[in-house]
Amino acid sequence: MTSSIQTSTASEVVQKATLAKQAAPRLGMLSTEQKNKALLLMADALVAESASIIEANAEDLRRGQENGTSSSLLDRIALNEDRIAGIAEGLRQVIDLPDPIGDMLEQFSRPNGLHIRKIRVPLGVIGIIYEARPNVTVDAAGLCLKTGNAVVLRGGSAALYSNKRIVEVLHEALGRSEVPADAIQLILDPNRSSVDEMLKLNGLLDVLIPRGGHSLIQNVVKNATVPVIETGAGICHTYMDESAQYDMALNIATNAKVQRPSVCNSMETLLVHESFAKQHLAAVANHFEALKVELRGCTTSVELVPSMKLASAEDWDTEYNDYILNIRVVQGLDEAIEHIRQHGTMHSECIVTENAEHAARFLQEVDAAAVYHNASTRFTDGFEFGFGAEIGISTQKLHARGPMGLPALTSTKYLVSGSGQIRG
Amino acid sequence: MTSSIQTSTASEVVQKATLAKQAAPRLGMLSTEQKNKALLLMADALVAESASIIEANAEDLRRGQENGTSSSLLDRIALNEDRIAGIAEGLRQVIDLPDPIGDMLEQFSRPNGLHIRKIRVPLGVIGIIYEARPNVTVDAAGLCLKTGNAVVLRGGSAALYSNKRIVEVLHEALGRSEVPADAIQLILDPNRSSVDEMLKLNGLLDVLIPRGGHSLIQNVVKNATVPVIETGAGICHTYMDESAQYDMALNIATNAKVQRPSVCNSMETLLVHESFAKQHLAAVANHFEALKVELRGCTTSVELVPSMKLASAEDWDTEYNDYILNIRVVQGLDEAIEHIRQHGTMHSECIVTENAEHAARFLQEVDAAAVYHNASTRFTDGFEFGFGAEIGISTQKLHARGPMGLPALTSTKYLVSGSGQIRG
Repeated sequence: MTSSIQTSTASEVVQKATLAKQAAPRLGMLSTEQKNKALLLMADALVAESASIIEANAEDLRRGQENGTSSSLLDRIALNEDRIAGIAEGLRQVIDLPDPIGDMLEQFSRPNGLHIRKIRVPLGVIGIIYEARPNVTVDAAGLCLKTGNAVVLRGGSAALYSNKRIVEVLHEALGRSEVPADAIQLILDPNRSSVDEMLKLNGLLDVLIPRGGHSLIQNVVKNATVPVIETGAGICHTYMDESAQYDMALNIATNAKVQRPSVCNSMETLLVHESFAKQHLAAVANHFEALKVELRGCTTSVELVPSMKLASAEDWDTEYNDYILNIRVVQGLDEAIEHIRQHGTMHSECIVTENAEHAARFLQEVDAAAVYHNASTRFTDGFEFGFGAEIGISTQKLHARGPMGLPALTSTKYLVSGSGQIRG
Repeated sequence: MTSSIQTSTASEVVQKATLAKQAAPRLGMLSTEQKNKALLLMADALVAESASIIEANAEDLRRGQENGTSSSLLDRIALNEDRIAGIAEGLRQVIDLPDPIGDMLEQFSRPNGLHIRKIRVPLGVIGIIYEARPNVTVDAAGLCLKTGNAVVLRGGSAALYSNKRIVEVLHEALGRSEVPADAIQLILDPNRSSVDEMLKLNGLLDVLIPRGGHSLIQNVVKNATVPVIETGAGICHTYMDESAQYDMALNIATNAKVQRPSVCNSMETLLVHESFAKQHLAAVANHFEALKVELRGCTTSVELVPSMKLASAEDWDTEYNDYILNIRVVQGLDEAIEHIRQHGTMHSECIVTENAEHAARFLQEVDAAAVYHNASTRFTDGFEFGFGAEIGISTQKLHARGPMGLPALTSTKYLVSGSGQIRG
């Protein structure tokens, strides 16, 4: 029913989403070979056109400097030959992933003779709303193409010239393939209104995936009428149980906190069993302070380690993504689980224990996308799980939960074969 | 993070959703036996308390008559001993369904020795917004309980007294079981504002399932910030191909149109191959007119059968749910598929043909939850598919598509077991 929407006066968003929707049926019928050939052409074209992409990127950087964009953001936007080669390599890795489209998930026959098959099909048209990093433009386009989906990309305006040139290059490559170039659409309108429009594009977009910071994701979740796959936010905990091995516990907590503090699967709060704390908290605190991690403790923690500042009520619900760590001493497993229930975001939670029964209870009772026993929460990641792609980590319970592999970009349909059956 | 929301001044919706959320963790850990025992107690209690339920129902009917409620709506609300026995029987059938909770969907080990298991878990708290029929109150409560979910029910005010008494009876039954009575919550506030509040209850409700007419469902889809499973709308087509067997084609189309015109999987538009139409359309039209079906045709159809009125542009996009049928003559398979792409709602679509290649193309190229070859679209139904329960028919592509069985009320989580692994 797109016809009613398709008019010459339609906005850029509606026009491009309509083109994507028109391309979608053909995409869904492409063979794995046809899609892989296009991915290879895209990867080669990005490398061959590095110079023009870097030139466009330089324009983004120039404007960013004029507008006083932070150097850390400029660094995320910046492209060079190595980065472009890395982005192209990412596309080549997608070629090697199994194509989920057409997989038969179930088949069964009914007493009336109907034969029913359930098969994987593309979602159709996926809208991706993201921030600065231009590599997302290529990653998203490649993953959507591999799964037979058309994609409407709306990247941050800070990388507009880079994204524009990248998509031109991808379109040129698709022009030499059997994949319709309309499969990849980039919204050029830098105004917030083009995002707002995408959020309400039911009938043209089948799903929206926001990729970026908390405010971007919350804007999409709160305002979209198109179904959304929510990704990102993580207030993750590590619980050192009474029977935890000290070295293992410290090693896991250190990895979860400082290996990459800025990401969603890093630790924000350390929970420590009271008897373990009496024995080890001082050493744990010294260790993190030596790593320049600011510690904010509960009253008991502060009594045990006076150098710690007292945590505020808000601290327990804050995703720092920084060298800051909350520490709370708990009486035992139940209090640890209850704290996580109250303050967690159902992303990734860890128990370090030698007590098998406690481990089993923690894994069952803690409600999160990924629950760990004696391993760092940092492993919640598509590559670490062996999915070979990074679509994002779903923090909702519908459709996909946790690290998303290619199947998260698919739907299903039932094929029903009969011989004249009617319903009685 | 419910604590912040939980205040003594909170609305009925927030208070009851909070109670449901607090009950959810216990529900998720119940054994199949504990849940089945509760379902049996619920079924028996409904039968034992039939008199008081019928009494409460009489109050709804009395008020309905005062307010001039239509007799058809009053009939849908009306309860008697037989209907209550049937509702209780529905609960007993849920006992026999396999419990999906705890099922291991995948398990694999990583090179670093991490062992990862993906298991089915409840969604958590499910909000159901529905209309008059009080049986939905029991069906939804039973299906959510079987899958370890808490449920917040918001039924139509026309059945308020019936629903209130039914939930009292269910609570009494749960009081004799190991299932917390808070697992089932009924919103009594009949004002529209209580629905609006549920739509935005992120953090307390994990998913909303609207059940009812088009306007109810669209209100939820357009205004909810909580993830929604959309159900219902269906503009379904049957295509009589050139090689279709006349008797089979007529039989399937008749079943799809008149066996139960009011439901979403019934046929609204008949597409007929031009050569088949020249031979048979007059007989097809006579047949449907004899069944008191009003026919609205394309220009070619009207030329072939002058008794037919001409269809308007809107008719092709209208879900009649009534004894009205659009008929369009098409040049062949491609035009049929394109018409369905333009006017279908991706619910259920059928081709009647003896041409295997055409059947295969139709099944692959038509994008719908269920695509049929030589069988009536009326089979798109949880019971007909053998799922043994009627949660609804998803018309969206995320999470669940088509008839939903118990697994549609579940999510998953990853259990990761290690021996001190950290990320490099």
